[in-house]
Amino acid sequence: MSLTASEVHELKKAPPVEGVLPVIHERWSPRSFAEREVSAKVLHKVFEAARWAASSYNEQPWRYLVGRRGDSTWQKIYDTLIDFNKKWAQTAPVLILGLARTHFSHNGAENRFALYDLGAASSYLTLEAAELGLKTHQMAGFDQEAARRTLTIPGEYAIGSVIVLGYQGEPAALGDAVLIEREIEPRKRKPLDEIVFSEWGKAAEI
Amino acid sequence: MSLTASEVHELKKAPPVEGVLPVIHERWSPRSFAEREVSAKVLHKVFEAARWAASSYNEQPWRYLVGRRGDSTWQKIYDTLIDFNKKWAQTAPVLILGLARTHFSHNGAENRFALYDLGAASSYLTLEAAELGLKTHQMAGFDQEAARRTLTIPGEYAIGSVIVLGYQGEPAALGDAVLIEREIEPRKRKPLDEIVFSEWGKAAEI
Repeated sequence: MSLTASEVHELKKAPPVEGVLPVIHERWSPRSFAEREVSAKVLHKVFEAARWAASSYNEQPWRYLVGRRGDSTWQKIYDTLIDFNKKWAQTAPVLILGLARTHFSHNGAENRFALYDLGAASSYLTLEAAELGLKTHQMAGFDQEAARRTLTIPGEYAIGSVIVLGYQGEPAALGDAVLIEREIEPRKRKPLDEIVFSEWGKAAEI
Repeated sequence: MSLTASEVHELKKAPPVEGVLPVIHERWSPRSFAEREVSAKVLHKVFEAARWAASSYNEQPWRYLVGRRGDSTWQKIYDTLIDFNKKWAQTAPVLILGLARTHFSHNGAENRFALYDLGAASSYLTLEAAELGLKTHQMAGFDQEAARRTLTIPGEYAIGSVIVLGYQGEPAALGDAVLIEREIEPRKRKPLDEIVFSEWGKAAEI
């Protein structure tokens, strides 16, 4: 199978549902990223979206370290990736590390929603990126402790995901057959009756 | 100050930024909810949005218990709320409890992104609700252990937030002066230079 980037983009779209924000169905996570720079103006917009997420006590525990290809932060984030991710992320113009303050500023108590709220903000970021014609891919596969050390992240911040941000590349550019196969698989999700319940284990009638 | 629901809605909007999804700037969390039912069709759409969030290993750890005013799940969720939240949530047509499976299905390993991914899915839910003209308000202020017991939630699911979903009510309907004051406060967020860094503590140029 040799599909182009735009054919894959079509293939990945979730079936549209009337009234649901199109960008939610259109957002997906490629591995092939084009070697095309992302402007500061675009970065401004994706973080503006993240900034307005809701958070427990409006703590806004989220922080982001942004590396742009060619700078030392990009390199340091890249160096923490597991080999499988290094293989495809090397063309990414932007690597972002998400972090969350683990205690509340107003009273020092533990914030058990720190990562939850970071997940919310980062998901707005990915949606806004999709809105602007970019793609994102979040990864858990990296060495957290190495990231903390080389990027001098204070102990009071929990480490979230690494977010690859850029423009979609051609699937064939991935080279590797396994990566190409995954790139052109349709997205799958559990049906609603497996995740939305009226009582535990009983599908809600929606 | 006596502002109407629609005046408050305007007041809560974040300053628009060209190219940023309007719904991100328009979503906010009221406390006054109208006593107006939410249809099954609308619920279907907000959960459809949640369903398409990204997750680590595509685990989709999110589960939702949905209570509709008058049913026993609504009552059980309501009963777990702290008094402050009970005061304003009593008119809410829908109360949702978000849950996250804490271990991966494919290998049983701990999923440290369980709550992070639940945060992502729930934030899509809140955005889609805003798109449909509804409002949401997430709360951490409830008795988790009571929720687990009365709603018979298995131990392998972590408890997230309670999400109030419904249509915005009139601020004056809150009755309480403190609640009304909060209801009409503009939303505030940290500026980008406090949350987006090129190196730790150094604002990114975006």
